[in-house]
Amino acid sequence: MSAFETSVSEVGDGVVNLRGYSLGDVMTSLSYTEGAFLSIFGRLPATGERVILDAVLNSLLDHGFVASTVSAARFIASGNPQLVPAVAGGLLACGSNTVSPQHSFEVLDQAEELRVAHGLTCAEAAEQIVDRYLSAGRRMPGFGHPTHKKSDFRADLLFAVARERGIAGPGVEQFTELHRAFTARTGKRLPINIDGAMAAVAKDLGWSAEQVVALAMISVLPGLIGHVIEELHNGKPLRHITDGTYTGEPIRSLPGRNGGGKR
Amino acid sequence: MSAFETSVSEVGDGVVNLRGYSLGDVMTSLSYTEGAFLSIFGRLPATGERVILDAVLNSLLDHGFVASTVSAARFIASGNPQLVPAVAGGLLACGSNTVSPQHSFEVLDQAEELRVAHGLTCAEAAEQIVDRYLSAGRRMPGFGHPTHKKSDFRADLLFAVARERGIAGPGVEQFTELHRAFTARTGKRLPINIDGAMAAVAKDLGWSAEQVVALAMISVLPGLIGHVIEELHNGKPLRHITDGTYTGEPIRSLPGRNGGGKR
Amino acid sequence: MSAFETSVSEVGDGVVNLRGYSLGDVMTSLSYTEGAFLSIFGRLPATGERVILDAVLNSLLDHGFVASTVSAARFIASGNPQLVPAVAGGLLACGSNTVSPQHSFEVLDQAEELRVAHGLTCAEAAEQIVDRYLSAGRRMPGFGHPTHKKSDFRADLLFAVARERGIAGPGVEQFTELHRAFTARTGKRLPINIDGAMAAVAKDLGWSAEQVVALAMISVLPGLIGHVIEELHNGKPLRHITDGTYTGEPIRSLPGRNGGGKR
Amino acid sequence: MSAFETSVSEVGDGVVNLRGYSLGDVMTSLSYTEGAFLSIFGRLPATGERVILDAVLNSLLDHGFVASTVSAARFIASGNPQLVPAVAGGLLACGSNTVSPQHSFEVLDQAEELRVAHGLTCAEAAEQIVDRYLSAGRRMPGFGHPTHKKSDFRADLLFAVARERGIAGPGVEQFTELHRAFTARTGKRLPINIDGAMAAVAKDLGWSAEQVVALAMISVLPGLIGHVIEELHNGKPLRHITDGTYTGEPIRSLPGRNGGGKR
Repeated sequence: MSAFETSVSEVGDGVVNLRGYSLGDVMTSLSYTEGAFLSIFGRLPATGERVILDAVLNSLLDHGFVASTVSAARFIASGNPQLVPAVAGGLLACGSNTVSPQHSFEVLDQAEELRVAHGLTCAEAAEQIVDRYLSAGRRMPGFGHPTHKKSDFRADLLFAVARERGIAGPGVEQFTELHRAFTARTGKRLPINIDGAMAAVAKDLGWSAEQVVALAMISVLPGLIGHVIEELHNGKPLRHITDGTYTGEPIRSLPGRNGGGKR
Repeated sequence: MSAFETSVSEVGDGVVNLRGYSLGDVMTSLSYTEGAFLSIFGRLPATGERVILDAVLNSLLDHGFVASTVSAARFIASGNPQLVPAVAGGLLACGSNTVSPQHSFEVLDQAEELRVAHGLTCAEAAEQIVDRYLSAGRRMPGFGHPTHKKSDFRADLLFAVARERGIAGPGVEQFTELHRAFTARTGKRLPINIDGAMAAVAKDLGWSAEQVVALAMISVLPGLIGHVIEELHNGKPLRHITDGTYTGEPIRSLPGRNGGGKR
Repeated sequence: MSAFETSVSEVGDGVVNLRGYSLGDVMTSLSYTEGAFLSIFGRLPATGERVILDAVLNSLLDHGFVASTVSAARFIASGNPQLVPAVAGGLLACGSNTVSPQHSFEVLDQAEELRVAHGLTCAEAAEQIVDRYLSAGRRMPGFGHPTHKKSDFRADLLFAVARERGIAGPGVEQFTELHRAFTARTGKRLPINIDGAMAAVAKDLGWSAEQVVALAMISVLPGLIGHVIEELHNGKPLRHITDGTYTGEPIRSLPGRNGGGKR
Repeated sequence: MSAFETSVSEVGDGVVNLRGYSLGDVMTSLSYTEGAFLSIFGRLPATGERVILDAVLNSLLDHGFVASTVSAARFIASGNPQLVPAVAGGLLACGSNTVSPQHSFEVLDQAEELRVAHGLTCAEAAEQIVDRYLSAGRRMPGFGHPTHKKSDFRADLLFAVARERGIAGPGVEQFTELHRAFTARTGKRLPINIDGAMAAVAKDLGWSAEQVVALAMISVLPGLIGHVIEELHNGKPLRHITDGTYTGEPIRSLPGRNGGGKR
């Protein structure tokens, strides 16, 4: 039931073959950005790709206390003051509510299907998708941010770099059209957020949803680490939620336990 | 480098041998308390042991928002609304600051060493240990609780059950003496806390430090689960720390990047 | 963005209110089985429910090396020899491929919908559901086990206890009918497995899918702990997969780095 | 019990201050290597530091199946086929047996203390440290590798880059002397391994033990991700240890349960 196969690496005495390159060469000739990309994607990034890759990887470096990941990691470190479990535990908070470009990616996949199947433009596909979401009462992913109300500068910068480097294609165009259609239909002035922008750029670069989530995890890691180290040095033991209220039953007696307890 | 050995269980078609008993028999004839004990300790609990075991396992069932484990789990669930990662992440907060009877256990080990090596009474060993900790400026484990200021009723109940069942022996006596000596010496009125009481009772039952931590993890699990399920149903996405302040540098320009940025 | 609410517990100086009962009473009068149930379900188990609850909680106590959870935990402990991270990491392997009664639960929900909407019997609903899965080429959950080929005794025992205690109702009947229809249609002789049986019994007791997954996590925990403690004492450092093969590219030169490397 | 403070970042509407720089500037002007360093260290890397930083971050990019982290992550993904829990779970395997430059760092700290306190040379301090370890029967950290028997090319490359860039100082010298003394004393031909080399270089750059562990975690992440994605796509469900043996008791009857079971 095991018998594993991998194309990531092969390790022997004195040699590591990482995706077809010597790890020694990677160590001395590539940046970590390139090495990380190679490890995950199985190829080196193209020249323009490398620049936007750095922008993507830097975009989530830290979002401070306004992040469930950091908050979770701090509480873990406060109970269990060690680096590794707190950082790993913080990563566990990456999911459908945060660090989640995959949902916007799915929307782009749906739009692409419509364009291909019915010969639609990005603008036409956008109308149909927005329709579909609004009539189903579903929240559209990739728009709005609890902190960055009017615009999410990280998204704007990613689009700017993508355009400047000639990377922006149907992904960026489609997401922009989705945003335009959504704004027109709802009147809401929610910005394109970083998850949406990551997904759009990923589409244009041929990255998969999984791969862009992976990059988001790498992006989030250093901030998590920074916060955990801080908590280890200056934090307080036994931190806990202080703004909680109890909404359950008051204390009652346990129902009769057969004359003096069940034992 | 693998080739594992185990005495926990053996699994074949139609049969699971759990520590020398058929899992079928365990399912139909034992309580979970007994089954869990068997899995970890490799033997069935003795009659009196079973009662105190239930008391130990129930003692940490939940400590609400006043627990780093629950707090961490809630934040994880808020970012990643799934049961398993949030519960596992909450467990990661068990460490030297919480759910940690092992530190009191170490103190009891030291006291036992002194008693054996120098023929001391529990009271005499207590004096020496308290001395040792106070003169080294170290906090003594097992005393005091941020919420239960005057007494920790969970500790008191554990000692009461242990005495009533004839389980209390040198472990309970030694820890009580440590507490007496500590109180006399410092004048502080800190109660014996649940971690300390667990360790004392564990000593008298022949459980190891590791085993009592294991029981504490089992004890903590249901409350964690209850909170995570609640967060999944009634929680809010993207919860985060709201009482944080920034103490770092204000924003400066990046130092000159060699005429227009490194790229 | 926080402001938590809970009905699990309220903690004050000298008192823990757990779901409307004093934790002190719980410690001295309830078994852990009851205490854990109370913490998660918010009520005490009924008399018959308590018996099947113990059977459910004991059913997954350990499945030895034939478990992804245990395997994962062992490798973690081999790299990081500590109890807490290895146990928590092992729990992370609970998901759609293992410890996952939720999929069978969904099937039972679908069958119930059919019965209610169209006045079908369990047998009729079973035919339609099996049809639906087979024609969609989907694997039916709750049937078959890689080790327990002909029958899964844990499932059989759970059904036996449920029938004996008068708990078996439409859930058990529906799942039995699903199994009958599946076997008749496919000719495959796969047994009802423990995940399927757990789901069926849960249905009859009014437990939710989430709650039965929670119980499965509690069930799995002691075995995980037993294995991790064993690995900590008798294991080997740096265990790793030994039956892996590399299927990727051989080592090539890095593409020209502009005369002497990018730096 | 909370009231957090941080100097990592401050987040407001439209602005993220990361360690005193605008995240927008970081996204457009820095590599991820620099951004990650800034997040953790609170300052930008110096010019030579950036080069060795990339070498450090690339050194553990992947070690394939010969890694407890990767092995653990694969088993988790096989039970729970999701990216985030498997990757986080893999990280939990970083500990005292792997990805652990901290132990070599401690040795360097001890040697530094000796040099400062007694005016010793690196060679003299090395003799004393090796003495201390050997006479206590302790394994010296930083030497030897189960796969890279004669030399660990990653360590060699790190030292080469450090020397070439003028970074090598007392840390590299001291660790080299420790190795020389160890080899002379024991006759064993174990190479300096990557953990040892990381620690030595970290010392010369003024990085703390914690910071170099943090960098090692970042280094390890992309390979983990690559393996997990592979397992998600081409893996098998329910993988488990296949080379395990049971060494416990054969199945016995449960001891008499008071005439027909305890209930």
